Amino acid sequence: MDVKLSTMITKPDFQAEFLSGILTANATPGIITFAGGNPNAESFPVEAMDAAANKVLKENGVMALQYSGTQGYLPLRKYIAERYKKMDLDFDPSEIIITNGSQQALDLFSAVMIDPGDKVLVENPTYLAALQTFHLYDPEIVPVDLHEDGIDVQQLEAALKEHKPQFMYLIPDFQNPTGLTYSEQVREKAAAVFKNSNCIVLEDNPYRELRFAGQSGHSFAWYLGEQCCLLGTFSKIVSPGMRIGWIACKQKKILEKMLTYKATMDLHTNMFGQMVLTQFLLDNDLDEHIEKTRLLYKQKAEYMIACIEKYLPAGVSCTHPEGGMFLWVTLPEGIKGVDIQRAAIKKGLAVCAGDPFYEYERNVPHLRLNFSNGSDEVIDRGIHILGDVMHELLAR
Amino acid sequence: MDVKLSTMITKPDFQAEFLSGILTANATPGIITFAGGNPNAESFPVEAMDAAANKVLKENGVMALQYSGTQGYLPLRKYIAERYKKMDLDFDPSEIIITNGSQQALDLFSAVMIDPGDKVLVENPTYLAALQTFHLYDPEIVPVDLHEDGIDVQQLEAALKEHKPQFMYLIPDFQNPTGLTYSEQVREKAAAVFKNSNCIVLEDNPYRELRFAGQSGHSFAWYLGEQCCLLGTFSKIVSPGMRIGWIACKQKKILEKMLTYKATMDLHTNMFGQMVLTQFLLDNDLDEHIEKTRLLYKQKAEYMIACIEKYLPAGVSCTHPEGGMFLWVTLPEGIKGVDIQRAAIKKGLAVCAGDPFYEYERNVPHLRLNFSNGSDEVIDRGIHILGDVMHELLAR
Repeated sequence: MDVKLSTMITKPDFQAEFLSGILTANATPGIITFAGGNPNAESFPVEAMDAAANKVLKENGVMALQYSGTQGYLPLRKYIAERYKKMDLDFDPSEIIITNGSQQALDLFSAVMIDPGDKVLVENPTYLAALQTFHLYDPEIVPVDLHEDGIDVQQLEAALKEHKPQFMYLIPDFQNPTGLTYSEQVREKAAAVFKNSNCIVLEDNPYRELRFAGQSGHSFAWYLGEQCCLLGTFSKIVSPGMRIGWIACKQKKILEKMLTYKATMDLHTNMFGQMVLTQFLLDNDLDEHIEKTRLLYKQKAEYMIACIEKYLPAGVSCTHPEGGMFLWVTLPEGIKGVDIQRAAIKKGLAVCAGDPFYEYERNVPHLRLNFSNGSDEVIDRGIHILGDVMHELLAR
Repeated sequence: MDVKLSTMITKPDFQAEFLSGILTANATPGIITFAGGNPNAESFPVEAMDAAANKVLKENGVMALQYSGTQGYLPLRKYIAERYKKMDLDFDPSEIIITNGSQQALDLFSAVMIDPGDKVLVENPTYLAALQTFHLYDPEIVPVDLHEDGIDVQQLEAALKEHKPQFMYLIPDFQNPTGLTYSEQVREKAAAVFKNSNCIVLEDNPYRELRFAGQSGHSFAWYLGEQCCLLGTFSKIVSPGMRIGWIACKQKKILEKMLTYKATMDLHTNMFGQMVLTQFLLDNDLDEHIEKTRLLYKQKAEYMIACIEKYLPAGVSCTHPEGGMFLWVTLPEGIKGVDIQRAAIKKGLAVCAGDPFYEYERNVPHLRLNFSNGSDEVIDRGIHILGDVMHELLAR
């Protein structure tokens, strides 16, 4: 048969190839992978989840298995709203939609906000799957450079004036891919600049609770109120396999349209998982649970950085994240991340080149490394291989 | 703030108002509703699901809580492929994608297949949420009339010739909204007509296993092979709250693009639910489970039809489904479904007018009634109210 596919789906997708490489590495036994973003399995509360599942099915089994509302399980939305109070944020449960991971929330927001040609600001570099989602709706992506202490505020101000963007997507804490965090000063200045614009801030915060050093800064929602929408997820602090994230949004017009769009997409997020997760959250101390993960990731980050100092050639540098799951490697002059990625996979090591995190730059001298998911022994072995690969490339 | 929403999301959505009415009625205590499509809660295997959840978390907890592949849990895809053998269909697990209910599969397929202006054939009337999904991608919808024994084959042949559609969406068994089923003769004739075209058949089969009278016909996939893609779901035979459906597709090009699109939408379907459902399917006899539901729905359908004969005025007729969850009421000359819907809700009864199931016709003399979800007492009370409403409207 001669099948004609849609124009949207046949557009070039630069990011897809990298993503599929990441997923293939994840699924290939024997490959050491720093390419993905998997939480460490040690952090999963398997027994407590079993108790929660049992309780839900015993006490509310029919509700867990029946159709439910599109917006999501109310006690879960209440829990999230309550937790925002710790960030000095005031959200009502009615301002939250539960989604299939925050990846779906990215799509809901994009579908509602982006017309072809609309401008969308992103950090440069930014999360690759966010770029993929935006691309579906054909915006013009305007990247704003990211420094050690956060976004370039002067560039931001100029971009807001010149492009009048629909929104800016940003990850202020332990950013993906760089691991960088905005200083409070940059947050304050950037917020002031946003306030003078009509640009919504879409703050993505999957890693915020995984801080293992330093102090948390304010969310842009604290500065901007309804001008800021928040993406959140339980993937990095409880379980990604349950696919439960959310978007918090005080703009009624946007929220309502996201709801009708979600109803058309998949009716609602799986109710069984929502109820089991909620039971887990109500019966356990999430902070205590996260604290263990924090300590684990602190040790992993420090261990990987020590290995980097031990094995990688002079001239390689990396970020020193205060939390999250990633660090960002800058390579010596003349070495491309894609070359390292290609050479490393031949030796059984998967890493992700910096390229797919950029809208325009290619052959960048960067790698993203995930530090959360390997044993110390695997981290040592993997960075050792990475060092060998770099030395070989430098020797040419 | 002055928020500009996307053109796509602000298009008129005739179906949305009806859908939101259905969902509101579902969520309002004290309302009798025949408007939705909820399975009867009596049919939910709560205890067996509890045992399955326990087993999964004890034996494979980490896998259930970790990220997973986009295509879905392999043992679940194997189970589905195996079950297709009962329909004399041969699918490989690699030809199946697990989705968040078959509603998401509808979207994946639409995104991959529809460019604005492309032609899509549907039965007239058809499933309202399928129309909503298609509308997102701006096709021209071409309805083909549905008779007691299935689609109008002559109209179909003419439409295929004139419009060269991308695909036809159809529900050959206990169709939503009408409850009608294609005869084998119509299947065979329609298949022959499709074979002479380049039109893919997207067969949706949520109710097929809920047959309580008569004989199953062949799937279009049996006649058409790779020219037919199948939507399936566990929502009507096990649990809708788990949101687990699938699409089976032998066209590699379509399948691969649906996979990359799904990865961008939400990475993968919730793994916890997929594994618990699979464990349930492996440890229990699904046919035995479904048999109970069949007997229950047979009794419900017969009971509702008896009440219709008892309470509704002369000149009202309804379909006599051989399975599924819906029947279709035709009203006497001069009465509109929307008028009945409006008058009934004032008396605490939610029914769905026929209008949203049509692309073009409005003020049609039809109602869709769901018979699966109420107790006998509720069915009696609801149809009694419906009779009162009709008598009052007729008396004016």
